[in-house]
Amino acid sequence: MDLPLILITNDDGIDAPGLRHLIKLMNTIGKVVVVAPDGPQSAQSHAITINKPFRCKKVKIDNGKQLEFSCSGTPVDCVKLALSKILDRKPDLCVSGINHGSNASINVIYSGTMAAAIEASVHDIPSIGFSLLDHDVNANFSHADNYILKITKKLLRSKFNSCLNVNFPKYNSKSNIKGFKVAHQSKGKWIEEFDERLDPAGNKYFWLTGKFINSDKSEKGDQNILDKNFVSIVPISHDLTHNDQIIDLKNILNE
Amino acid sequence: MDLPLILITNDDGIDAPGLRHLIKLMNTIGKVVVVAPDGPQSAQSHAITINKPFRCKKVKIDNGKQLEFSCSGTPVDCVKLALSKILDRKPDLCVSGINHGSNASINVIYSGTMAAAIEASVHDIPSIGFSLLDHDVNANFSHADNYILKITKKLLRSKFNSCLNVNFPKYNSKSNIKGFKVAHQSKGKWIEEFDERLDPAGNKYFWLTGKFINSDKSEKGDQNILDKNFVSIVPISHDLTHNDQIIDLKNILNE
Repeated sequence: MDLPLILITNDDGIDAPGLRHLIKLMNTIGKVVVVAPDGPQSAQSHAITINKPFRCKKVKIDNGKQLEFSCSGTPVDCVKLALSKILDRKPDLCVSGINHGSNASINVIYSGTMAAAIEASVHDIPSIGFSLLDHDVNANFSHADNYILKITKKLLRSKFNSCLNVNFPKYNSKSNIKGFKVAHQSKGKWIEEFDERLDPAGNKYFWLTGKFINSDKSEKGDQNILDKNFVSIVPISHDLTHNDQIIDLKNILNE
Repeated sequence: MDLPLILITNDDGIDAPGLRHLIKLMNTIGKVVVVAPDGPQSAQSHAITINKPFRCKKVKIDNGKQLEFSCSGTPVDCVKLALSKILDRKPDLCVSGINHGSNASINVIYSGTMAAAIEASVHDIPSIGFSLLDHDVNANFSHADNYILKITKKLLRSKFNSCLNVNFPKYNSKSNIKGFKVAHQSKGKWIEEFDERLDPAGNKYFWLTGKFINSDKSEKGDQNILDKNFVSIVPISHDLTHNDQIIDLKNILNE
């Protein structure tokens, strides 16, 4: 049987250790094509480049057997360009990451890594975004390897058309991951605390900063599962309709 | 009774006619504070500015009674900054738009206008994104006025905690809007057709272009409702969990 065709991207950029790690793993199970941003595109969400053009070039970064393309656009641009111009057929899977930092709970809506996976799902391609709860550029990803391979192989084999948001606890030499759990997105939000500064000319500018608040008490919330040292797996939809509100809304608006 | 406090933003920029139109309407029903991007931020989705700082200054653009702030960040940055640094209390409502162009169907996930409304909803603020199916900078918005006022007043009065994606058909002098309908997000996607060009130095670059495909046959899809010359109103959730897939996924992964 032909090897599955796997498209890989991320939002930390083509040189990010998390992406390089994921490429090595995927090379063991499929034919890999990487189309990734040429620099950091974190928190770019589902942004696309429409007011200016962008560039893309074939690159060779290591001795792996993957094909690689570096692109000046966003993660979603990378997926769109791959599907339209680079791949000769629809991939069997799109994987994104491994993100340096959490995409659990509300982080999913800001994440470029997850937006790339979601974009693939819009085109009916099964997809997985992998993220590690560690922002460090030298983070240890190895404890995730077996889970990544297992989840990827099972999704590929099932041909289930799903987009998965998979988050891993930070590596801890004293405590192994306890397993994985299918979860829902924990209710939570960031409370912003802008850092206000003056430039050398005396003009004000702001750095976005903040604190994450998990307001979800459910044992099945992804953040709560991660807090207990399990891998969380949330199936993600690109249909944003809040179906539970439709009847109330009709009443309020007197439709 | 005190007037409701209404935060206004958009993604077309603080000078966009759609925003100026919305400010005039909102001035008739509330105390208005505008915090909007200083230039076009279309298709920025839920992007936030984290790798560089951004600026924000008070501006006066017309003789309206609103307070206005122009910000170098994305639409979501504008909402975050407004809530954290500009407003002295939580607003009663956040309205975003009027967007020059459709945010129906899959467009909602790329839209900066809708991301701003969604960000407000993350902070438990009722919100509405208004969009017109006309990209023209000189588009006629007046046929939407009565609907905008009616929907806004009803949502304010109800105190229903919802985020609405409201789209208006393009103005047509020969055919009046037939009414409004509460809808779901139509299934659809963009098929990309990248425009490939060479710069003067002979290097390749791409312009993103494409064609929207509506694959939803349901009468209650927002695109389908718009096609029949009704206003579409979709309640939007920021919980992306695909709940219908959870049981299947547990089986596939042998949780």
